[in-house]
Amino acid sequence: METLGYYNGDIGLLDELRIPMNDRACWFGDGVYDATVSANYSIFALEEHINRFFNSAALLYMVPAITKTQLAELLNTLVHKVDSPTQFVYWQMTRGTAPRTHAFPEHTTPNLWVMIKPLSLPDIYQKIKLITVEDTRFLHCNIKTLNLLPNVLASEKAKQAGCTEAVFYRGNRITEGSHANVHIFKEGILRTAPLDNLILPGISRAHIIAHCGNLGIPVDETPFTLEEMFGADEIMISSSSTFCMSASHIDGRQVGGKAPELLRQLQDALLDEFRTCTSGEHIGGQCT
Amino acid sequence: METLGYYNGDIGLLDELRIPMNDRACWFGDGVYDATVSANYSIFALEEHINRFFNSAALLYMVPAITKTQLAELLNTLVHKVDSPTQFVYWQMTRGTAPRTHAFPEHTTPNLWVMIKPLSLPDIYQKIKLITVEDTRFLHCNIKTLNLLPNVLASEKAKQAGCTEAVFYRGNRITEGSHANVHIFKEGILRTAPLDNLILPGISRAHIIAHCGNLGIPVDETPFTLEEMFGADEIMISSSSTFCMSASHIDGRQVGGKAPELLRQLQDALLDEFRTCTSGEHIGGQCT
Repeated sequence: METLGYYNGDIGLLDELRIPMNDRACWFGDGVYDATVSANYSIFALEEHINRFFNSAALLYMVPAITKTQLAELLNTLVHKVDSPTQFVYWQMTRGTAPRTHAFPEHTTPNLWVMIKPLSLPDIYQKIKLITVEDTRFLHCNIKTLNLLPNVLASEKAKQAGCTEAVFYRGNRITEGSHANVHIFKEGILRTAPLDNLILPGISRAHIIAHCGNLGIPVDETPFTLEEMFGADEIMISSSSTFCMSASHIDGRQVGGKAPELLRQLQDALLDEFRTCTSGEHIGGQCT
Repeated sequence: METLGYYNGDIGLLDELRIPMNDRACWFGDGVYDATVSANYSIFALEEHINRFFNSAALLYMVPAITKTQLAELLNTLVHKVDSPTQFVYWQMTRGTAPRTHAFPEHTTPNLWVMIKPLSLPDIYQKIKLITVEDTRFLHCNIKTLNLLPNVLASEKAKQAGCTEAVFYRGNRITEGSHANVHIFKEGILRTAPLDNLILPGISRAHIIAHCGNLGIPVDETPFTLEEMFGADEIMISSSSTFCMSASHIDGRQVGGKAPELLRQLQDALLDEFRTCTSGEHIGGQCT
């Protein structure tokens, strides 16, 4: 198949599959999701993504109708149905199908959705451009939910400005991007926002911190400001499909470029890990 | 029909109709809605609701594929298909159907959804119970969007506590309820939160203010606090399906009940207006 949509067992092309109007995604965005990439039909960091997915669900009091192992098996099966060596692998759970009332419906089970489509992995060594946007999102950004309107608006603003990503600031603090975490290098230290309710606990963020440990790069998980970002040696975004890419411009101003070796070390480590774990020889092994 | 679902011209029972998985409601909650009630197949305050709907869409840069007049005609036609003298009439517009990317898709037109179901109008003179919940919502609460997770969570919390509605506070300020505006009477004055980005511009709220004008009741549209609410003479919620109902308890504490005549005057005025405008004799007349 060129693309794959899955809904509670139904499978079809993404642009042909239909779902019930009364799914609570439709009225409330009442659901959670997670996503990663696959290469050679091997899904990268799947266990970590599934753990985060179940955690998101629990934070919204959703009880999955499937175990983590069953979900992993399902996703590992479905990627083989899509004819592409690299894929975007996305899944979501919604609270159920019921007539519209705000409070949780009774006697329903969550719906499971999967979406898989071909993905071209980016050249992560290319420089990108960013804009800054005020963070007007809700205070549940640690949960990967379907309530993404401010992210949509910020992404569109970035696109209109010819940029890859919008970086949110709340007051003077940098929180994260509209679909990525944000980090900086300053004087040999990686600065990244702490895990609280204002940012998503990124899987790539966790890998970056782990690689910094291996590379002997100190990590400081305290909030950093707009000014600190503009004055940083390097500014990076990270997500499951961008790994770690660095910025040449923010809001049209030239930034970063002052710690290229450090940046390269980190990017190489991330890409090496991805290639090793998706080589087809590590399924079920130490790569999660 | 017992219930009606409509999607871009398709019509079916609500629990049978299906919509495309790639509708942006499904991935992002990328849409706006509005809702009101009908009686005797006459939709109450339809023009005001349609105006607010178009305003919500414009605030999210959505360009409707239908005029206000066409939408009114469609809704007025559809209510006749549902066999119930009183109905909940709901409609929404989503940004379009396209593969999932955060930024706006190109070359798509918005999708139009309608949902109509029987509704029992409440006895508005009954007392209700409320709880208070911290307002963790985004800063776009003036737009009636499909990003309703905090409202869902607060409503569930109210339901679990045996209450009708959750009242949000942000800092010490009362903003609104999880699906209603909130007002108080204190010393003969109606206090209601100002129209900013923290509350929805309620149509019932606007009618309440207009009726206060007719009744000679002063209105103060400055923010009021948690303490002022607990100490108020009466505490009311308003929405299109509850009109104006007053609370006997908040968080288990007895409240209000000190200005019953004032409250009754306002409730009578609202109900009279509704009955007159939905009597079947005023379609196209001064009732909007």
